Amino acid sequence: MSVLIVGSTALDSIKTPAAANPRLLGGSASHAAVAASFFAPVRMVGVVGDDFPKRYLALYRKHRVDLTGLQIQTGKTFHWAGEYEVNMNNRRTLLTELGVFEQFTPHLPELYKRTPYVLLANIAPALQHHVLDQMSRPKFVVADTMDLWLNIALDDLLRLLRRIDGFVLNESEAHQLTQDDNLASAFKKLHRLGPKYVIIKKGSHGSVLSGPNGNFICPAFPVRKVVDPTGAGDSFVGGLMGYLSTARGTVESNLRRAMVYGSVVASFCCEGFGVNRTTRVQRRDIEKRVQELQKLTRF
Amino acid sequence: MSVLIVGSTALDSIKTPAAANPRLLGGSASHAAVAASFFAPVRMVGVVGDDFPKRYLALYRKHRVDLTGLQIQTGKTFHWAGEYEVNMNNRRTLLTELGVFEQFTPHLPELYKRTPYVLLANIAPALQHHVLDQMSRPKFVVADTMDLWLNIALDDLLRLLRRIDGFVLNESEAHQLTQDDNLASAFKKLHRLGPKYVIIKKGSHGSVLSGPNGNFICPAFPVRKVVDPTGAGDSFVGGLMGYLSTARGTVESNLRRAMVYGSVVASFCCEGFGVNRTTRVQRRDIEKRVQELQKLTRF
Repeated sequence: MSVLIVGSTALDSIKTPAAANPRLLGGSASHAAVAASFFAPVRMVGVVGDDFPKRYLALYRKHRVDLTGLQIQTGKTFHWAGEYEVNMNNRRTLLTELGVFEQFTPHLPELYKRTPYVLLANIAPALQHHVLDQMSRPKFVVADTMDLWLNIALDDLLRLLRRIDGFVLNESEAHQLTQDDNLASAFKKLHRLGPKYVIIKKGSHGSVLSGPNGNFICPAFPVRKVVDPTGAGDSFVGGLMGYLSTARGTVESNLRRAMVYGSVVASFCCEGFGVNRTTRVQRRDIEKRVQELQKLTRF
Repeated sequence: MSVLIVGSTALDSIKTPAAANPRLLGGSASHAAVAASFFAPVRMVGVVGDDFPKRYLALYRKHRVDLTGLQIQTGKTFHWAGEYEVNMNNRRTLLTELGVFEQFTPHLPELYKRTPYVLLANIAPALQHHVLDQMSRPKFVVADTMDLWLNIALDDLLRLLRRIDGFVLNESEAHQLTQDDNLASAFKKLHRLGPKYVIIKKGSHGSVLSGPNGNFICPAFPVRKVVDPTGAGDSFVGGLMGYLSTARGTVESNLRRAMVYGSVVASFCCEGFGVNRTTRVQRRDIEKRVQELQKLTRF
């Protein structure tokens, strides 16, 4: 089955201690769409300006991403620039030019409205609401977020949590939202806000799922050399939703493996700038790392 | 088979946001000995003053810890006081009175010298060396350490690493020692320093083993309420060595499960002040959590 992915589509200029790469393909929807494409047909909704490089449109197409929902508007594409320190957990934003993204309203093509799996990738909660308003009975809706929305759009986000099945956030966001350092009690509080499934991402420490059938401690695939972690979280949730949408059986029975697949795609994402590494991955490379993770965690 | 445990034996006065508990049984050897005692006979070497409460000697005996190697000297027992913040990853030392520990020299009773499994719990590397000098062909030697020794006794520690089979340290210590943020390359550098097995502890994120047969990502048992994390690392390595010493088969084939058992004992340690919770644990409680960890990590 198809996955609908709505989020940001951007150009990222990224500096690390090792290199600087201007105007890479970036944005939550781009990373998630490439990640999901290894498993399922992807329908993407986003906006770019008329400066958006043709080669990036070709790259989406290479991943068979349905671009009917991609708006190309007069103006500049959302441009973000950031710099990582030696410890890549620390980064600072150098520039944020919203461009056409500032006025973005996600319009769903008619065909998209019946997509069974919906990923509301990181984007303003009001826009995530607007997507759900247009959907016709989706099977499984997952939303990602970021600290910015907790700070400036908390009410919208809290309303959204009552409309989704799964919520993905990172450890510090979970702490900010629940005021709780303990994962077990943070999960309880997050479930009370609405979502049946909650996944807390912990970067290189993996992720943890809390759902009706209990918790799952999902390992991160150990990356030998982190080149650029931008988009790893988006790749994780993109891979997760892609896998989930094509697996037989129930969401509950497939979610653990879906997380592992997401974790593996995220590991590839970290190994190159932007989507440079991810886009060169073959399904067999993914399967190999999933098997390695089996070996790494078996006892 | 027996485990020899050498380390500090202390009185810990611990404050948390919830409570204050003076003069608890503490020290790396105490925590490790109690943890190991669930699996194997323990021989302990340490020193206490003549102020050491009789009830703590009784507590060691309750855990069938062989105290032939415990020196009781005229003077005061090592007393440490510390205070935890709401986020229990942050603590500060309020007081360190070394007492009789200042002049401690670990003398091994004759019988101890042939103990097959040796845990050099956290203590000055010079004393860890002194223990090894007295041993007769131990089967498996593991050393723990702390940041203090990296700062003031690095040469001794580096010499020690060439004499042991397994080295256990936490993530920040691994970073300090290798100047490497990446776990994979930090492991490489640590192996080059000597030990065949390296275990990096990551607190509530679990631990990772690197050894000849590859790596193992060991989960932490999710603790619902952390009361006092003091001694969790000592309990982990104590439980690990206790399990290892009684398991059939090779070290390599048992080390993963040994880490899981250590992780479970450490989870109990965090649930009470000092060893209050650990000492009330039954072997079946441990088995239950090991099974839970199986369920929590299976995919």
